[in-house]
Amino acid sequence: MEEEADIVGKAFVEHYYQLFDNERPSLSTLYQPDSMLTFEGQQILGVHDISSRLQQLPFERCRHVVSTVDTQPSAVPGSILIFVSGSLELPEEEHHLRFSQMFHLVPTAQGNLCIQNDIFRLNYG
Amino acid sequence: MEEEADIVGKAFVEHYYQLFDNERPSLSTLYQPDSMLTFEGQQILGVHDISSRLQQLPFERCRHVVSTVDTQPSAVPGSILIFVSGSLELPEEEHHLRFSQMFHLVPTAQGNLCIQNDIFRLNYG
Repeated sequence: MEEEADIVGKAFVEHYYQLFDNERPSLSTLYQPDSMLTFEGQQILGVHDISSRLQQLPFERCRHVVSTVDTQPSAVPGSILIFVSGSLELPEEEHHLRFSQMFHLVPTAQGNLCIQNDIFRLNYG
Repeated sequence: MEEEADIVGKAFVEHYYQLFDNERPSLSTLYQPDSMLTFEGQQILGVHDISSRLQQLPFERCRHVVSTVDTQPSAVPGSILIFVSGSLELPEEEHHLRFSQMFHLVPTAQGNLCIQNDIFRLNYG
């Protein structure tokens, strides 16, 4: 089970940032009406508002480079906790921005994994 | 509920690092037999092994300085997800080490909140 969580979690991370960097509007397919995002301390609830917020970020092009992915099965059957560290490359920024992000993936009634919880922070210092 | 999660989560974070920095053996009171810790990529299962690992870290004295705490209620009733960033000060290190850590707190049968999931990473770069 831990191994399965790890394989699924790592495939999810690759898919998530691939969409973020190349097809950002499609990220909305990964959230649900009761999903939660905390983005740099700002709390956003639900797929609609989360999707709008991600579209409105002050950069159009970006590239996420993942450094580490840690996964654990969560207490909800079939659900997975994922912890990512990496850097965000923006065309107009000389230096990369380091970030950490966590996801809690929970199966829907249809059996798909969706993002129930998402917390993102840039790492300063 | 979100506000309650936030108050409880922040109190937990203060308590956790206070124990870590001053009374590390007492951290074992916060874990359970099925708790999971991933420490710098190393997976450790259960309160006994987690407690041993935390005792064996290659520094006796340390100080955690918390920069940000983000919390969200989790899908398990009464449970809380916590995402911390901060720095770890060691007496023998001139520079502080930046870290990120997430906790998933889940209520026990007795109604206490315990750490079900714990993932810790130092932030390099």
